[in-house]
Amino acid sequence: MVTSADVRSHASRDSCWVIIDGNVYDVTDFLDHHPGGANTILRHAGKDATAEYEPVHPEGTLDAHLPKDKHLGPVDFTQERESEKAAPTPSIDKKPSGPKQNPLSVLQNLDDFEIEAQKVLPEKSWIYYSSATDTLSSHTNNRVAFSKVSLRPRVLRNVARISLQKTIMGFRSSLPVFIAPAALAKLGHPDGELCLTRGAARYNIPHCPSTYSSISHAELAKCLQSEQEAVGNKRGTLFFQLYAPINKREGALKHIADAKRLNFTALVVTVDSAVIGKREEDERYKARLDHDSGIVFQANSSPDPDPNLDRPVPRGAHSSTLEWDDLIWIREAWGKDRPVVLKGIATVEDVVEAAKRRVDGVYLSNHGGRQLDYVPSSLHTLLEIRLFHPELFDKLDIYVDGGFRRGTDVIKALCLGAKAVGLGRPFMYSLTGYGTGGVCRAIEILSDEIQTSMRLMGVTNVDQLDMSYVNTALLELEMPRLHNLRLQGKL
Amino acid sequence: MVTSADVRSHASRDSCWVIIDGNVYDVTDFLDHHPGGANTILRHAGKDATAEYEPVHPEGTLDAHLPKDKHLGPVDFTQERESEKAAPTPSIDKKPSGPKQNPLSVLQNLDDFEIEAQKVLPEKSWIYYSSATDTLSSHTNNRVAFSKVSLRPRVLRNVARISLQKTIMGFRSSLPVFIAPAALAKLGHPDGELCLTRGAARYNIPHCPSTYSSISHAELAKCLQSEQEAVGNKRGTLFFQLYAPINKREGALKHIADAKRLNFTALVVTVDSAVIGKREEDERYKARLDHDSGIVFQANSSPDPDPNLDRPVPRGAHSSTLEWDDLIWIREAWGKDRPVVLKGIATVEDVVEAAKRRVDGVYLSNHGGRQLDYVPSSLHTLLEIRLFHPELFDKLDIYVDGGFRRGTDVIKALCLGAKAVGLGRPFMYSLTGYGTGGVCRAIEILSDEIQTSMRLMGVTNVDQLDMSYVNTALLELEMPRLHNLRLQGKL
Amino acid sequence: MVTSADVRSHASRDSCWVIIDGNVYDVTDFLDHHPGGANTILRHAGKDATAEYEPVHPEGTLDAHLPKDKHLGPVDFTQERESEKAAPTPSIDKKPSGPKQNPLSVLQNLDDFEIEAQKVLPEKSWIYYSSATDTLSSHTNNRVAFSKVSLRPRVLRNVARISLQKTIMGFRSSLPVFIAPAALAKLGHPDGELCLTRGAARYNIPHCPSTYSSISHAELAKCLQSEQEAVGNKRGTLFFQLYAPINKREGALKHIADAKRLNFTALVVTVDSAVIGKREEDERYKARLDHDSGIVFQANSSPDPDPNLDRPVPRGAHSSTLEWDDLIWIREAWGKDRPVVLKGIATVEDVVEAAKRRVDGVYLSNHGGRQLDYVPSSLHTLLEIRLFHPELFDKLDIYVDGGFRRGTDVIKALCLGAKAVGLGRPFMYSLTGYGTGGVCRAIEILSDEIQTSMRLMGVTNVDQLDMSYVNTALLELEMPRLHNLRLQGKL
Amino acid sequence: MVTSADVRSHASRDSCWVIIDGNVYDVTDFLDHHPGGANTILRHAGKDATAEYEPVHPEGTLDAHLPKDKHLGPVDFTQERESEKAAPTPSIDKKPSGPKQNPLSVLQNLDDFEIEAQKVLPEKSWIYYSSATDTLSSHTNNRVAFSKVSLRPRVLRNVARISLQKTIMGFRSSLPVFIAPAALAKLGHPDGELCLTRGAARYNIPHCPSTYSSISHAELAKCLQSEQEAVGNKRGTLFFQLYAPINKREGALKHIADAKRLNFTALVVTVDSAVIGKREEDERYKARLDHDSGIVFQANSSPDPDPNLDRPVPRGAHSSTLEWDDLIWIREAWGKDRPVVLKGIATVEDVVEAAKRRVDGVYLSNHGGRQLDYVPSSLHTLLEIRLFHPELFDKLDIYVDGGFRRGTDVIKALCLGAKAVGLGRPFMYSLTGYGTGGVCRAIEILSDEIQTSMRLMGVTNVDQLDMSYVNTALLELEMPRLHNLRLQGKL
Repeated sequence: MVTSADVRSHASRDSCWVIIDGNVYDVTDFLDHHPGGANTILRHAGKDATAEYEPVHPEGTLDAHLPKDKHLGPVDFTQERESEKAAPTPSIDKKPSGPKQNPLSVLQNLDDFEIEAQKVLPEKSWIYYSSATDTLSSHTNNRVAFSKVSLRPRVLRNVARISLQKTIMGFRSSLPVFIAPAALAKLGHPDGELCLTRGAARYNIPHCPSTYSSISHAELAKCLQSEQEAVGNKRGTLFFQLYAPINKREGALKHIADAKRLNFTALVVTVDSAVIGKREEDERYKARLDHDSGIVFQANSSPDPDPNLDRPVPRGAHSSTLEWDDLIWIREAWGKDRPVVLKGIATVEDVVEAAKRRVDGVYLSNHGGRQLDYVPSSLHTLLEIRLFHPELFDKLDIYVDGGFRRGTDVIKALCLGAKAVGLGRPFMYSLTGYGTGGVCRAIEILSDEIQTSMRLMGVTNVDQLDMSYVNTALLELEMPRLHNLRLQGKL
Repeated sequence: MVTSADVRSHASRDSCWVIIDGNVYDVTDFLDHHPGGANTILRHAGKDATAEYEPVHPEGTLDAHLPKDKHLGPVDFTQERESEKAAPTPSIDKKPSGPKQNPLSVLQNLDDFEIEAQKVLPEKSWIYYSSATDTLSSHTNNRVAFSKVSLRPRVLRNVARISLQKTIMGFRSSLPVFIAPAALAKLGHPDGELCLTRGAARYNIPHCPSTYSSISHAELAKCLQSEQEAVGNKRGTLFFQLYAPINKREGALKHIADAKRLNFTALVVTVDSAVIGKREEDERYKARLDHDSGIVFQANSSPDPDPNLDRPVPRGAHSSTLEWDDLIWIREAWGKDRPVVLKGIATVEDVVEAAKRRVDGVYLSNHGGRQLDYVPSSLHTLLEIRLFHPELFDKLDIYVDGGFRRGTDVIKALCLGAKAVGLGRPFMYSLTGYGTGGVCRAIEILSDEIQTSMRLMGVTNVDQLDMSYVNTALLELEMPRLHNLRLQGKL
Repeated sequence: MVTSADVRSHASRDSCWVIIDGNVYDVTDFLDHHPGGANTILRHAGKDATAEYEPVHPEGTLDAHLPKDKHLGPVDFTQERESEKAAPTPSIDKKPSGPKQNPLSVLQNLDDFEIEAQKVLPEKSWIYYSSATDTLSSHTNNRVAFSKVSLRPRVLRNVARISLQKTIMGFRSSLPVFIAPAALAKLGHPDGELCLTRGAARYNIPHCPSTYSSISHAELAKCLQSEQEAVGNKRGTLFFQLYAPINKREGALKHIADAKRLNFTALVVTVDSAVIGKREEDERYKARLDHDSGIVFQANSSPDPDPNLDRPVPRGAHSSTLEWDDLIWIREAWGKDRPVVLKGIATVEDVVEAAKRRVDGVYLSNHGGRQLDYVPSSLHTLLEIRLFHPELFDKLDIYVDGGFRRGTDVIKALCLGAKAVGLGRPFMYSLTGYGTGGVCRAIEILSDEIQTSMRLMGVTNVDQLDMSYVNTALLELEMPRLHNLRLQGKL
Repeated sequence: MVTSADVRSHASRDSCWVIIDGNVYDVTDFLDHHPGGANTILRHAGKDATAEYEPVHPEGTLDAHLPKDKHLGPVDFTQERESEKAAPTPSIDKKPSGPKQNPLSVLQNLDDFEIEAQKVLPEKSWIYYSSATDTLSSHTNNRVAFSKVSLRPRVLRNVARISLQKTIMGFRSSLPVFIAPAALAKLGHPDGELCLTRGAARYNIPHCPSTYSSISHAELAKCLQSEQEAVGNKRGTLFFQLYAPINKREGALKHIADAKRLNFTALVVTVDSAVIGKREEDERYKARLDHDSGIVFQANSSPDPDPNLDRPVPRGAHSSTLEWDDLIWIREAWGKDRPVVLKGIATVEDVVEAAKRRVDGVYLSNHGGRQLDYVPSSLHTLLEIRLFHPELFDKLDIYVDGGFRRGTDVIKALCLGAKAVGLGRPFMYSLTGYGTGGVCRAIEILSDEIQTSMRLMGVTNVDQLDMSYVNTALLELEMPRLHNLRLQGKL
């Protein structure tokens, strides 16, 4: 049995042990493969890391990723004097007790959930959920774009009964909306992504958890099944979001096999993450933590670069070699009959390319403004397609996300040609503190907003929404102009 | 005689009694038919509701809407111990004594009235008057639109005498302005809508009270008559605003019969209210009240929707089945010779349709930004008509409202082709605290502003105002462009 | 001799006496002819009005405008008990001692003078100088317009010596700048407009005092002469600004005769003031004063208008019947060889008309935003002329004012085709507290800014400035578009 | 030996002595030739000026610019009573101890360096670094321009290895970035420009010190050499920035000879500084200092100008006669094979002219907004070239600076056609307080941002960046339009 004094003596990059749930692990060799970076572990070197580890890792993570011989067994505290005990890292990040959350009935829109979430999330978690890349331009622009499209309602139509159903990646959804991938739901509630799967199932909309779900995909599949059994019919579905890992093909094939085994019904391949974006609030927070912990700073790029060499990848975590041709073996592994959708496209050129590759759909997204800065909003790209290649809307399904908060936001995207709309952050905020009830309330609000707005527009079925119901003049001012001819001629 | 203890024991949704003006009423069956929603009554279940009831209901409402057998007679307080008395609901909503209103002479424009009104209105009333839908985009945009049209004045013209007269829905008005429908004036002053009828009559402009006038239409008709008798000539007129109620045809025909009997001279059919818009400040205020009163929250949309069913109407109060063809029996009931005008139109397409239906006029309005969010301002729609179907200005009269506060605002709409301009909220604010005097001062200010601006523009008659006096370049940037051809070709 | 007790007993609209400089005047009949309104006098009825009267009236005003029999002679205070003395109206409007003005050397631009002026001006004077009409849109827009024009400098040119001379209304000025009409300089400094005449003469630029100069035109003419004698050559000149008074022809001819007699060299006929604009800060201030003085409020428009009558002129002070044909007798009276310029034009149409009438120049101005709201800036109108009728620049001289504060502002107007630029408020602020020294410093700053900017643009003579040195793209976005064809075809 | 009492008695414009480093100098005749103005010296007349002198003058300045007979020798303090000692001017400008700078690892972007610099810079130095001309419009616009260009990323490309190398004025740089001229680095750190040369060498990018480097060019050349020897290969280079001095040809030729002797590899001729711009914060600060020191204020332009004379140059310091033809002897002196680049061009017309003159490159710049106000940003001018004369990109190299702070800023300029980007202020802020370490950290951040953004755009080599990767629609709205035809036809 390992003593706690032993653990304390392995507290460096050269030999790094940590305690998790009473067991000791040697993570020295794993440091450089940790997707969250080595420093995140080093801050706990020689200490008990359970409190930090637990909310961001699904069950079974250690078994799956750390070789058995690095599991050093339970820690022995008996030889320890009380004062020397390797106490859990003091929680640097407890939220001081602030204002209480409002009751759900008082919340009137999805922005309200963000306000309530900030009241109770610890700083680190708030930053993880809310941060975005560089100047926040992509992030901010996502929201601003909606103000550049106005609605053109028609009157004196019978709108007593309306239908909101849409087929989303093969699934007949009750709303033109799905829960988009967003990682680490346990930061907001102990039930984590289970809240999302439950809420989505109850309202019969799809849930697409992140590759980095803090609840394992197997548990989510089980949760969906039990929800479906409870109501006695098949409601809801799960989509599988795929980041190609560093060991591209091998890792991706393993993910795909899991997804098929667990009955995920669509594969959402994320294509905008060759490297991780520079989310400054996140990096600043971690840098301050490292500095306070005495961890020596290492610059992202070498301080003495050889001018004759190309630069290798910093900010890695995913494959930076994923290419269009990789879609061939991905499709083969996933099967011909289940939908494959590419997530993270932002230009009409890439939609043209995707259409050639015969994927089932593209998912316009700038990753919630978390990857490249200064990129177009999904509304912008939708309009770009409509101006330069409107025939694409007939060739594949187009999904979108990014800044959607209102029923009118959803309606605008549908008018422009989107098949359905994903929402990520709003659902993370809705489960924070409230759990499944918050997710349900958020879906209700969105559903009510869509219905009310459609009735006031004189529209009874989401399939009727088209360009005649929107005025996109202000967004057209921002369309690429200089290249119109070239775009139209060459693509 | 019913004892107050009896009343207190009927305090639930299953059996709900309330005291109004010393009489007891059983409103259990009426709860779900209350246009303001069941909760508004339930908050007072088993209690004295007089203070809340009185300002928002015209005299005779209970007689007209509650069957006689539910009138349970006077309440008996004699068996009551002092401490148990069913006191009126404590006024949750008294305005704490704040700054006093300024004397009317100091007020210089219609915005000043809003500032003065907020000083004295209780929170609930302020919210009712001022709130608008969703993000307030429609509401805000109404005001912003005026800044996108500038004036083009001409000099060296004799402007000693000028005329502001316009024929509005058949009535020769002294100003190109009328008082637009806005409900519940008693929230602002005990005389309620009487102040508006009086002010309008004195300045010889039309008043169009709301279907939900807190003074009965009969009383307003009587008030107009006595004003006219006082000055010995026929000044002012009343128009009838019509919401088609839930029992569409039956209810509407009853309203129309009333309007004819009381000599209302024009029928203004509101067509933008199939459901009620989501005014968040209003709903948030009520949700907080319900939560504090322990009333159980019910979501607007079902928590367990059947995905195979269409959605029925929440947010009801009016007919959501009113259609273009209903105009046939409405016209028939109202008569061929009196004007019918459709209020709430926002697109050139609907004006084209209205012209085909041979109504006398359309009334461009987005309901003060209280219904659908992100809709065009009236100025925008006027320009849309001018660009795509200028011949419509010859086929029917076009009225507008929405955010008008200044003489220059009115002039801009007239230049673009409007026949006259309605103002709603500003007159509600003008009567708040000040009564009829405030309304008169508001009309004076507006009249002075229009006159002064016209003289400075070199124009002596409102009929001369046309497109050569405005620069609409900035508004043209927002005109639908992509659809120009389609709009021009197909409509 | 009139006792002060007698004076006190004439304190109403029916009989109104005031004391000025120890003499008593009966102004009862004059009340309704006072250009500043009756209330301004009534506030001092029965009291000593010297302190309010003095700074806003040139010497000789009472002799010129009040019949001799209303001069009641000196007041006798001897029979007065100390406590009863008709003390001067307590100065309601003394500036509480605030921050001191900075030394002139520290001021770096003309905006700095505004800040310094506000430190020492009494509230009423500050409001008079700074106020503008309605929403302040015209006023604000004047400044904003400059930000829509950028400069296009050229490099590598010899700019060691440059010339800024321009001929302004026939006068060879050292700078392309003149002091524009602005009334009541004595509010800012006891020497009033003398400071402006002196400063202008010293830097050899024209001064155009207001009709309402608080120093008489005769005194200004004398001042100019003595400045010219001091330096021994002919520097500076005076222009005569003309408001046509209520008794149009008679009054104007008298003014013109004065102007000729006093050797004013150009006649600037103001054509944008048929009525006075609604400067709200001004009116609010006076209303509050009247209310506090117990003066009964009278609305601008009748509270009981006869709908069959046209509206007569409120807000009068000037002739509201001045017409294009009046220019015939004005020209005749003024003489063929001296320049006549029309001030207050804002559209290309009126410049076309002016060109037909063979005036020497037009002066684009919106009266510093004090008359009509929402009118174009001078830069806008210059560009309108250039787009639709560029030949006008060859037919007459075009002067401008409105919001000019910077050397670059002046340069932009010259590039667009203006002959010279007037500045009004900045010079009123520059004399406030500082007198003639402030005016000189303001001219120096402006001259330095123009020189420095021209050198950095690679331009050595103001006559070289043309459209190739500016980018007006943003201003072109605001040009009237819908009417292009009509404007170009019909004018 | 000169006594300190002697020094004190020479404290006026007529005879002005100062003590520097214990030696006395007679600077009376030099006052009017001091590039920083006479007042800067007069504030220290008769006193010890060492503290103010030292950080802004390279070693050897006195020897080079003050004749030997004005070096009066060491000061003798022995005869001085303690209380009379000519103490150094009390530091009017010590930064009160405020917040400490953050550790470098916490800084996440170049804006962070500005915040840190302001914490420790004395007011005068902060103003010198940060101030810009007039209204700050040019300065602000530089930054705003970047928000008008968005990026158009492509997905599914192998971006594992990328190259950032560019040839900048003949030097193969590891990044498409160089350190732009900015004066007086010793204000920020005692090592001054040495920090910049060192940092640039270590990352193998060029450094172009200012003519007014506070470290002599000779020392910088020596520093570069020793850096290169340390790593054993040739890294980094120095460019020579040239202001043509008042004695144009003679002075410039001396500079050029120095530059050749010291092996500077490119000549950057600044062409936008015929006079110094009006940096108001700077001038206000100095005016206040002069006023407090009792120095008599002298206006920039004569208070009594002769209207018949042209204006001579105020704000001098450089030659204001430098012309295109001067490039002939400059080229001759510098040699045919080394690059000459013109810095400070802002219009397509001047690039056309430069191409005719066969310079190797132009450097679009508005001098960080410090010279002319309201001029275009470099992005604007790049787009102007692309629209009107795209062939220019093949005729010469185009460099840019102005407001660049982010990797995406650099990428945008490269997409529009720039060869490389200079940054000035950010590097001055990075060395402030941090020295060479700060400069290195700043380069690392920029390098990381460029790499990360390129990978996320799907681009592996900076040479691939072109117009297809940007959307310039918003910037195109600001392109000169009226002149399109003329520009395209005539140039």
